[in-house]
Amino acid sequence: MRGLMMDRPLLISSLIDHAAAAFPDQEIVSRTVEGRLHRQTYGQLQRRCKQLANALAALGVEDGDRVGTIAWNVYRHLELYFGISGIGAVCHTLNPRLHPSQLVYIINHAKDRFLFIDLTFIPLLQSVAHELKALEGVVIMTDREHMPETALENVLCYEDLVLSHSDQLEWPEFDERSASSLCYTSGTTGNPKGVLYSHRSTVLHSWAIALPDAADLGLATCLLPVVPMFHVNAWALPYAAAMTGTKLVLPGPALDGESLTTLMSAEEVTVTAGVPTVWLGLLHHWQETGKNVPSLRRVLVGGSAPPRTMIESFEKEFGIEFRHAWGMTEMSPLGTVNVLAPSMRSMADDERFAVKCKQGRPVFGVELKIVDEEDRPLPHDGKTFGEVKVRGPWVCSAYYRERRSASHDEDGWFATGDIATVDGGAMMHITDRKKDLVKSGGEWISSIELENLAASHPDVAHAAVIGVPDAKWSERPLLVVVPKKKRSPTKQEILDYFKGKVADWWIPNDVVFETELPLGGTGKVQKARLRELYAQHGAQQR
Amino acid sequence: MRGLMMDRPLLISSLIDHAAAAFPDQEIVSRTVEGRLHRQTYGQLQRRCKQLANALAALGVEDGDRVGTIAWNVYRHLELYFGISGIGAVCHTLNPRLHPSQLVYIINHAKDRFLFIDLTFIPLLQSVAHELKALEGVVIMTDREHMPETALENVLCYEDLVLSHSDQLEWPEFDERSASSLCYTSGTTGNPKGVLYSHRSTVLHSWAIALPDAADLGLATCLLPVVPMFHVNAWALPYAAAMTGTKLVLPGPALDGESLTTLMSAEEVTVTAGVPTVWLGLLHHWQETGKNVPSLRRVLVGGSAPPRTMIESFEKEFGIEFRHAWGMTEMSPLGTVNVLAPSMRSMADDERFAVKCKQGRPVFGVELKIVDEEDRPLPHDGKTFGEVKVRGPWVCSAYYRERRSASHDEDGWFATGDIATVDGGAMMHITDRKKDLVKSGGEWISSIELENLAASHPDVAHAAVIGVPDAKWSERPLLVVVPKKKRSPTKQEILDYFKGKVADWWIPNDVVFETELPLGGTGKVQKARLRELYAQHGAQQR
Repeated sequence: MRGLMMDRPLLISSLIDHAAAAFPDQEIVSRTVEGRLHRQTYGQLQRRCKQLANALAALGVEDGDRVGTIAWNVYRHLELYFGISGIGAVCHTLNPRLHPSQLVYIINHAKDRFLFIDLTFIPLLQSVAHELKALEGVVIMTDREHMPETALENVLCYEDLVLSHSDQLEWPEFDERSASSLCYTSGTTGNPKGVLYSHRSTVLHSWAIALPDAADLGLATCLLPVVPMFHVNAWALPYAAAMTGTKLVLPGPALDGESLTTLMSAEEVTVTAGVPTVWLGLLHHWQETGKNVPSLRRVLVGGSAPPRTMIESFEKEFGIEFRHAWGMTEMSPLGTVNVLAPSMRSMADDERFAVKCKQGRPVFGVELKIVDEEDRPLPHDGKTFGEVKVRGPWVCSAYYRERRSASHDEDGWFATGDIATVDGGAMMHITDRKKDLVKSGGEWISSIELENLAASHPDVAHAAVIGVPDAKWSERPLLVVVPKKKRSPTKQEILDYFKGKVADWWIPNDVVFETELPLGGTGKVQKARLRELYAQHGAQQR
Repeated sequence: MRGLMMDRPLLISSLIDHAAAAFPDQEIVSRTVEGRLHRQTYGQLQRRCKQLANALAALGVEDGDRVGTIAWNVYRHLELYFGISGIGAVCHTLNPRLHPSQLVYIINHAKDRFLFIDLTFIPLLQSVAHELKALEGVVIMTDREHMPETALENVLCYEDLVLSHSDQLEWPEFDERSASSLCYTSGTTGNPKGVLYSHRSTVLHSWAIALPDAADLGLATCLLPVVPMFHVNAWALPYAAAMTGTKLVLPGPALDGESLTTLMSAEEVTVTAGVPTVWLGLLHHWQETGKNVPSLRRVLVGGSAPPRTMIESFEKEFGIEFRHAWGMTEMSPLGTVNVLAPSMRSMADDERFAVKCKQGRPVFGVELKIVDEEDRPLPHDGKTFGEVKVRGPWVCSAYYRERRSASHDEDGWFATGDIATVDGGAMMHITDRKKDLVKSGGEWISSIELENLAASHPDVAHAAVIGVPDAKWSERPLLVVVPKKKRSPTKQEILDYFKGKVADWWIPNDVVFETELPLGGTGKVQKARLRELYAQHGAQQR
């Protein structure tokens, strides 16, 4: 028997319509690429989104067409989020930090008809434009005054385009399972793969991330997402902000500690979100200058695990809650959040910070399990580690235009490639990426645990552990170390440091010193590159 | 083009499974009908729900069958919420405060196959059992030890039933639009009408009510819903608590000020929710005894508009945020919540409390408009009043087993029967029920505004305004007053009190004094009854 409730679709256009209806005067503040600070309200934003939507329709953009963006966190990017998806087209955000050849692959694979780009990225696009066969036009996200000379063809000026259209529009209604947006993973092996979000997944995920125990969004929140809108939709925070009337502060291209501190202080930001690298920059700036942001109550961190010292600095030095979350592009991205139960607040510092290093509990909407190599569920004892598999309405079911996915099983679970333990209180702790585990004599060694330990050595700035071939054990761990400036630890000092801290057979076979580690487009260490470099290393040691 | 996201249904069983997986040790504390305090965890609750589900299946309860409950806010009622809906049957909550003849009508109309009742309601059921033709059995919600002698037929003991079944069960999966639960409106005219909620509407509504600017639910929240689980699912707070890992405290039958204060203090309740009548009792108890609940941060109020003095007492005397919300059975129930924008916090008391008397802004998921008698949209100027119409995925599309609904229009909007203004900041203010408006000379007079004014007179305990027939003006307002104990105001004193506070033509034609007002099953004044009593009154005055 069916319930007798209205069959209203969950659409992204409803988010911006709601914001304009319920919070017409709430502000969106944006540092622009051109330099100035721009202010608008949700009421004004909605009207601009409708102008943009009419402009897209006039360009011939139709239902399901892909429209690409290469842009910072700026208000025009926000207009594109709602305007493109609102008319049923697909907002395809592109990561400018990827290698140009990857960008070409992605744009051609997605068959983007138009690209909307910030001024910053004109040289990047010029360098590859001749390879983009399906592209019909490029819209530079600026006004007439700032339009540059460019060798690009079929170029339009964003403001000219938008302002030449009416703000009168009733958003179309369609199935909530329709595609809304597209983001490619920057896969370290093979070609990038596209994750195609739907209106339904985006709206449901917005509720999840707005909850008190996730980003905690509402009228009293002032949110600055440092996490880029070109990567997993800035954790979908812009949608959730519109849902809840949260004041949004968009930092534009200036993501250094000083710029962030100035903007956050001026706008009285209460919550911010980003990857550990950004917070490292912010912390250094605060520690060097004695400044901080008095209004800031909470920092959300994800993308990779923050070092414990970072969590301690924010909480103990600055009294700011550091909230650790986990997810991935395939998960929209939210999977788990680490919020302490009231009973944990009274824990001793040492125990509490150990808990805060974990990735947390699943949010409602995400089912999660850990399994062994034969796909059997593993116990939640805080010790046994296995691959994390997830299921839920905002988890991808397949990759865009890929026939097969090795990550999806018959029962509809997605294998994340992350290795974790889960404790009796349901707290998940990621111990490694599956491909980065070192498999020694049939047993797993966690590269991340070894790296964290190495990074806590006083002379070590960065560390990476990879498995290298070994005749006897099949693989053994190799430690790659970037020493701190003016420090030169010896191999033996580093190896001795591990003794008594991990099982003897976990201790790396060798240490090599480098001046830097190879980083990918999203700031993660490229272990595949390290494995290539050191493929022949194993035979030489022990 | 469809998105490529997993097609997972939103089911009520997922809520309890999530609670058990993510918050296995979070507590549910319940004052029982038998008298003792009962404690269980979400992990234990889930296993009991599965035992109950297996027991229901053994009784022959199938997909879509209606199973009725007449019960307080107790843990067994919570088990019924998840257990009945979990297997695809319909949890039909019945309001014991309704007139027995209405209960008979509702049970027969819904064709409830089984009734689960608290000990309290055995006499009530015995008095009408012979009229319940479709009923196959009654389950008394207690254990063997407390089972009473009863003349009821086909009686089972809840604990015997539940404990005789296994807790092993995989919840069935089905369409999220399937019916989950049923609640009849206590309609003041005509027969009660059934609102049939779906799994989808319940899960979406749970997200909405859990948000920071609604009930603000999470691991750190300890919630005591005073609002009964037999009426609109206790505002669906039990579902939202499971979604968010909120500690639940269920007060059982003891809803007086002293019992609530004792339980709230012992369990360190942070948020509570209920109708103004309950808060009046609590306030009186606090003011008389000097006690209060130090842990309490927030009181949610809905069901009818709280008097301003109540809001001021909670906020100024006790430092507790009083959060005003609006909705109705047909809306699951949440429609709007009054949360002050940060800019409003610095308002002078007088202005701030005037704003706090409004019902607030729509939550995401509820579209809202005010219209005139020709269904034309009215301006949001804070002055023009019209009927509130709503639309959204948790608003009813029709009534159960009713061919037609006068409240639903062709475009899918539901006419709430509430009359309101909306100001430029999107704040809605209910001025009356449509049927309670007094239509004088073609113009509307708000009965509620006059009642609020009368209630602020120092000698008035309660007041009601109804329209009575008038030859010249078609209708004129009549004021019914219950004086405070030991006070005896005169008609003229009361009428003089209105002068200068409202337009002269709004001032009631006459005042009548009563010792009490007739109240309906949900504690609201029965104006239809007053209109009957005073139908002949109009001709006598002015």
